[in-house]
Amino acid sequence: MKFSNRIKSVQESPIRKLVPIADRAEKNGKKVYYLNIGQPDIETPREFFEAVNNFDRKVLEYSSSHGLPQLLKAFSEYYSSKSIDFTPEDIIVTNGGSEALLFSLMVLCDHGDEVIIPEPFYANYSSFTSSLGIKVSPFITKAEDGFHLPSIEAIASLVNDKTKALLISNPGNPTGTVYTKEEVRMLADIAKEHDLFIIADEVYREFIYTETEFLSFAHLADVEDRVVIVDSISKRFSSCGARIGCVASKNSEFIFEFLKLCQSRLCVSTINQVGAAALSRVSHEYIEKATVEYHKRRDILYSALSSMEGVVCREPEGAFYIIAKLPVENSEEFVVWLLEEFDVDGETVFLAPAEGFYETEGSGLDEVRISYVLESESLKKAMNVLKKGLESYPKRK
Amino acid sequence: MKFSNRIKSVQESPIRKLVPIADRAEKNGKKVYYLNIGQPDIETPREFFEAVNNFDRKVLEYSSSHGLPQLLKAFSEYYSSKSIDFTPEDIIVTNGGSEALLFSLMVLCDHGDEVIIPEPFYANYSSFTSSLGIKVSPFITKAEDGFHLPSIEAIASLVNDKTKALLISNPGNPTGTVYTKEEVRMLADIAKEHDLFIIADEVYREFIYTETEFLSFAHLADVEDRVVIVDSISKRFSSCGARIGCVASKNSEFIFEFLKLCQSRLCVSTINQVGAAALSRVSHEYIEKATVEYHKRRDILYSALSSMEGVVCREPEGAFYIIAKLPVENSEEFVVWLLEEFDVDGETVFLAPAEGFYETEGSGLDEVRISYVLESESLKKAMNVLKKGLESYPKRK
Repeated sequence: MKFSNRIKSVQESPIRKLVPIADRAEKNGKKVYYLNIGQPDIETPREFFEAVNNFDRKVLEYSSSHGLPQLLKAFSEYYSSKSIDFTPEDIIVTNGGSEALLFSLMVLCDHGDEVIIPEPFYANYSSFTSSLGIKVSPFITKAEDGFHLPSIEAIASLVNDKTKALLISNPGNPTGTVYTKEEVRMLADIAKEHDLFIIADEVYREFIYTETEFLSFAHLADVEDRVVIVDSISKRFSSCGARIGCVASKNSEFIFEFLKLCQSRLCVSTINQVGAAALSRVSHEYIEKATVEYHKRRDILYSALSSMEGVVCREPEGAFYIIAKLPVENSEEFVVWLLEEFDVDGETVFLAPAEGFYETEGSGLDEVRISYVLESESLKKAMNVLKKGLESYPKRK
Repeated sequence: MKFSNRIKSVQESPIRKLVPIADRAEKNGKKVYYLNIGQPDIETPREFFEAVNNFDRKVLEYSSSHGLPQLLKAFSEYYSSKSIDFTPEDIIVTNGGSEALLFSLMVLCDHGDEVIIPEPFYANYSSFTSSLGIKVSPFITKAEDGFHLPSIEAIASLVNDKTKALLISNPGNPTGTVYTKEEVRMLADIAKEHDLFIIADEVYREFIYTETEFLSFAHLADVEDRVVIVDSISKRFSSCGARIGCVASKNSEFIFEFLKLCQSRLCVSTINQVGAAALSRVSHEYIEKATVEYHKRRDILYSALSSMEGVVCREPEGAFYIIAKLPVENSEEFVVWLLEEFDVDGETVFLAPAEGFYETEGSGLDEVRISYVLESESLKKAMNVLKKGLESYPKRK
């Protein structure tokens, strides 16, 4: 009995695989600050829970494979508020952004096809592509440049006749980078020139800490038929456990093909869709407050990291992540050491080793991703642990 | 711009694609009896909704990729009550049975591999396999034989070096057939002899109307390392919209590989898992009553169909479906005609054309699948519509 090559090529989640070690640290009485995962501590809007509690159907039925009409309308209105034109017909509700991504890749790419992705990238992109036999063609972006894009030539040189799409996370997970309008335009031009789709994962759209206005790929009319937006309420409304996302595109043939996959999985949870639709009643202050809060945390984190000798990073512009280069040979070893052998007054910190965010072997070995999803005081303590940890680490470079 | 070959090979859901025609019939004032889809009218247990309403976390967080511990325990205890030994470690919670199937196929089969399935089969099996580039190798079972299995040689002759698994729905959707112990044993023997996995979709396990005891593939100790059970609460507890299912296997390597895919989609809806875990408190009377009700409906349906001239079917033994051969050339045309051009006192019926349940081109053209998911009076009226419809149909054979 043999398992498939496709599943053998899927790596364990680099974010989740060290969880048992953190569990052990907690069992041994340590307090662990979890900065390894994008699980915010911000309260979910009460409108979500109220709508769920008011659900009064006697039979919990399948909903439409497309999505609940009121939720499609809510997504459409949300895009409208961002000057993005997506009618409910352009949108399909998905099981989180994850399903939107998996299915988009299935619609666009066959086994053996290629997708161009800036490196480092969200580790699950690699799980999705590997499990489908799709090759990632990565181009490198660097901590020293704040993970901004290289030249148009460096990217376009990766295109070959197997290349089907660019897959872009903006604002970036794990980098926190927000691409400038010129960068977004450049990627769109590459897609046009080489007849590619753009899968744009914009789930962190709301969390931007610079003055620059965010340009969505959906704002560019001349590529609207080749843009697929992947979205989710998970981060925007701190409702990761709802598993509600969507895909949106002006390419109606894409939507038609995507829907076939949605029909095969019947529907997305009815109750969570009801809750998610009610989020359209949440005042914009909710997101503004969250953004101010993340902005403050980013400042704390960045200033703390900047004060640590040997740490290299640039100020992230959005999302709630930062990739930092540490003065260590192997950041996974260091993360394990922090959990198993180090503490400051009984407290330690859990970071995500960055190697899993790279396709190119040997890259990111000395980097970590840090999520700023805890409130300021915890974040300060966690950064103090990291600072002291780096000072005491026996294998420090 | 081109879409993938894999998505082009996925058919539109044969069950859902005629929905717009039924919608139009309703708009024109007709009452439609929906016997085309497996959406029961039985009330969901109130324990589910109570647990959901009592969910009092302020942040709707991700849960474990594996599943909520209390739900894994509930599934394990349920299996125990069926004399099936699955510990929580043998189980992973999934987005309905659908995800359990999709991911099982990904774990076991590469692009180009083959899966043996008795025909007719649940149409979405074909969506999952096509979208993954897996070939279905079907063997025919017939209405005249109650869709029971052919000889061991007929099945085993399909095995080649690309064959990775048998995919079996038992009790059967769309056939309503419950395999005898001898049939289950025969399939297990084929799997052993030819080193195959068995993906056993047993979501209708509770709904059996014969005296014969149901034998699960999980009851067979000698093949426990090659059996993968696909399950769901959707039908058992009439909670299709919860999208809670699971995969279970004693093969720990399978569970390890499967979990990698689950990590990539992060988790299943937290609230629905809380609701589903509470179903372990539902008294067994709930399922007994539902089974009695479906049994009654089956009798009504079967007796009505048996009284119609030219209709061929055998009494189904389980689930809540029957496949009937009708005296028409093309059952899809007939179904559309019923919706668009026929009614009895303003009422009509919506059946699922069976062609989509067959892999072999040209099969099932004169068959329909009928779900007995409505209460008796509606079912009787719907059968009267069908009878009159068959009598009046201009293209009747």
